[in-house]
Amino acid sequence: MTATPPLLPENVFDWLDAEGGRRAEAGLGRRLRPRPAQHTGLDLASDDYLGLARDKRVAGAAAAAALRWGAGATGSRLGTGSTELHSELEHELARFCGAQAALVFSSGFAANLGAVTALSGAESAIVTDKHVHPSLVEGCRLSRADIAAVAHATPSAIKHALATRRKPRALVVTDSVFSVDGDLAPLDELAEICRGHSAALVVDDAHGFGVLGEGGRGAVHAAGLSSEPDVVTTLALSTALGAQGGAVVGPRRVIRHLVDTARSFLFDTALAPASAAAALAALQVLKAEPDLPAKVVENAGNLAMQLKNAGLPVSLPEAAVLSVPAPSAEAAVAWVEACAEQGIHVGCFRPPAVPDGVSRLRLTVRADLSEADLDRAVKVITATAPPGAS
Amino acid sequence: MTATPPLLPENVFDWLDAEGGRRAEAGLGRRLRPRPAQHTGLDLASDDYLGLARDKRVAGAAAAAALRWGAGATGSRLGTGSTELHSELEHELARFCGAQAALVFSSGFAANLGAVTALSGAESAIVTDKHVHPSLVEGCRLSRADIAAVAHATPSAIKHALATRRKPRALVVTDSVFSVDGDLAPLDELAEICRGHSAALVVDDAHGFGVLGEGGRGAVHAAGLSSEPDVVTTLALSTALGAQGGAVVGPRRVIRHLVDTARSFLFDTALAPASAAAALAALQVLKAEPDLPAKVVENAGNLAMQLKNAGLPVSLPEAAVLSVPAPSAEAAVAWVEACAEQGIHVGCFRPPAVPDGVSRLRLTVRADLSEADLDRAVKVITATAPPGAS
Repeated sequence: MTATPPLLPENVFDWLDAEGGRRAEAGLGRRLRPRPAQHTGLDLASDDYLGLARDKRVAGAAAAAALRWGAGATGSRLGTGSTELHSELEHELARFCGAQAALVFSSGFAANLGAVTALSGAESAIVTDKHVHPSLVEGCRLSRADIAAVAHATPSAIKHALATRRKPRALVVTDSVFSVDGDLAPLDELAEICRGHSAALVVDDAHGFGVLGEGGRGAVHAAGLSSEPDVVTTLALSTALGAQGGAVVGPRRVIRHLVDTARSFLFDTALAPASAAAALAALQVLKAEPDLPAKVVENAGNLAMQLKNAGLPVSLPEAAVLSVPAPSAEAAVAWVEACAEQGIHVGCFRPPAVPDGVSRLRLTVRADLSEADLDRAVKVITATAPPGAS
Repeated sequence: MTATPPLLPENVFDWLDAEGGRRAEAGLGRRLRPRPAQHTGLDLASDDYLGLARDKRVAGAAAAAALRWGAGATGSRLGTGSTELHSELEHELARFCGAQAALVFSSGFAANLGAVTALSGAESAIVTDKHVHPSLVEGCRLSRADIAAVAHATPSAIKHALATRRKPRALVVTDSVFSVDGDLAPLDELAEICRGHSAALVVDDAHGFGVLGEGGRGAVHAAGLSSEPDVVTTLALSTALGAQGGAVVGPRRVIRHLVDTARSFLFDTALAPASAAAALAALQVLKAEPDLPAKVVENAGNLAMQLKNAGLPVSLPEAAVLSVPAPSAEAAVAWVEACAEQGIHVGCFRPPAVPDGVSRLRLTVRADLSEADLDRAVKVITATAPPGAS
C-alpha cells in the first residue's frame, strides 16, 4: 500500500460516487423529499396507523412535556436522562401488554439492537426468519452468536435450525407483522417450537401493536404470549402511537438484564420527554377508544380486496400494511411518482429494503380513511400501474 | 442438544439471573433513578453543557413544533418522515460548521453507526483509538471491515496500523473530546497521518460541538478540518444543543451516500419534529450568544484545578467533561451516592462504560454554573472521597 503515492484528499471518497453511479443505473438512487406541515393529498405511506401523531391530545401532551421537562432528556437513561415520565410510560406499557416490565429506548431500532444482543452472545444460536426487519438483522450481526437466517414463513426450518445448533442457548427472532408485505408470523407455532428446544422467543411487534389484538394490545398479546416467561416483545412508539422511540416488554429479569448490559440503551441519550409524553397520551387514547384498531384492519382488508379485484397481485394484509410487487425498481419509482402526482402518497420499497430483492409499492392504511378515500386510491393506483404489474 | 429434556419456559432465562448475580458481586449492578421535572441540587452529570434543554426559546420551539407538525415524524426519512424542519436543520448545521451538507439521524448513536458502516465495508480497514465511544465500536463491529483498535492517544500506532493494513481503503475513527475523561484527540496530527495513507477521517464531535471552536462550532472546525473533502464529523443534538438526535456533517457526496446506504438511517423512524425544532432553536441561540461556549471551558478548568488542588487525581478537561478515578466500582457508586445525598449530582462510570476498566466519577459542567456552585461541588466531592482516591 505504502509504495504507491497517497490519494489527494479530494479523491479519498471517489469510490462513493462510483458506487452511487452504479445504484443510479440500477434504479436504486434515493432522494429526500421534505414535506410541509400540512399534508396535501392522501397519505397511504406513513406508519401513523391510528392517526394519533396529529391528534390534539397526543401532540398537546408532547408540547406540554417539552415546556415542563425541557426539550431534551439531557443524558443517558442511567445518567440524568431517566425522568418520571419514562418510568410512568414503562409501567403503563407493561400493564397494557400484560407483561411484568418494560424498558423505553430512543427508537424501535435501538430496542431491537438491545434485545437481540443482550439476550444472546457467543454461547447462543439465533434463528431468524429471512424477512425480519433490518434492525433485527443488525442486532444479529452485533451479537457474536451463531446465526441461522431461514426461509420466510417456514416454521419447520426454524425447528430444524434449533435442533441442529451447536450452542447451548438459543433465541428465535421474528417480526409479528412483517414490515414489507404485512403478513403475520405464526407466533403460537413458533412459541411451541421454542419450547421444544429450550429457546427464547423475541418478537418485534412494531406493526402489530396498536392494530392487532384486544384493544390494540398487539400480536403477541393476541397469541396469548405477552406474559410468558420465555417471550420478549419489542415495540415502536413511532408507529400506531404516533410518537418516537421504542420499547422492550417482557419478564422483569429480562428488563433488569437490559438495564445492565444493552449497549444501545447504556450508551444512547434517553428519549426526549416530549416523545415519552406523546406515547403515554396515545396509550390513553387507545384505552379510551378500544375499537379504533379494528378499523385499521378493516380498511386494509378493503383496500387489498379492491386492488385484487382490479387485477393487481396485492399481498393479503393481516394488519395495516400491504404491498404490490412492481416489475422493476425503476417501474416502482415511476409508479409511486405517478400516484403522487394525482395526490395519492404510497411507499416505494426497493433493495436493500426488500428481503427478496423485489421492488414494491408499499401501502399502509389508517383508522380514519373513508370509503371514498379508498375508492380514490384504488382508482389512481390501478390507472397508473405499469404493464407488468398485473 | 436434543437428547436432553427441554428447559421449562420459566427456566429459559435463568442464565440472566446468574450473570446478574455476578455483576452485583462485582459492584456492576445498575438501577434506574427516575428524576422529577424540577431538579433539586446541583447537576454535574448531564450533557446539557449550555443549559439549553430548559431554555424557553428551545423548549418553546419544541412545543410549537409538536403542535404544528405532530408528535411524531410518522415514518422513515425516505418515507413520510422528512419534514421541511429536518431539511432546514440540515442546512443550518452544515452552514454553521462550514461543511457542504448534513444529515439528521434519530440519535448520535445512530449517526455513528451510519457513518462508520456506510463509509467502510469489506474492502476497508478501520483504525480506531481504543477509547472511542461505544456507538463507534458498534459501528466498527457492523462494518465487515478489518478493525485495528490501537492504544489511546497514540498517533504513531494509528500511523503504523494504516501503513500495515491489508485493505485498499481506510477510515480513521476517533472522538474529538473523549467522552469519559474529556481529553482531546490531536485532530490536526490525525488528519496529516490520514493524508499520508489515503485514509478518510471520521470524528465524533458530540462533546466538542457547542463547546469548542469559534462560537461553539466544534473541535473539527477549530482544527480547520470541517470543510475538508476527506473529513466527516458526527454530532449529537442531545448534548450542547439540549435536544435529541444526531447528525453527520461533511462533503455532499458523503451525505448522498449515507442517504442511499446507511442502514441506521434507512430503517429508522425519523427524528420527532419537536426535537428537530429544538435543535434548530438551540443553534440560533448559539449564533446569538457566541461567548456562551467559552464559559463552559472556563468552568471545567476551574473545577478541575480546584479538585486537583484538593489532592484528587482529576483528568485535565479540554471541554466540558472531566473525571476522577475511584479505587473500585463499589467505591465509585458509594462516592456518587454520598455526593447526591449532599445535593451534588455527578456521574458514575463503571465497566463496560470505561474503556480501561477503571471506575470513575464523571463530572460535567454547564455555562451557567456560578463560582459558589463550583466551590460547593469541590467541598462535597473532596469531603466524600474514599481513602484510595487521592
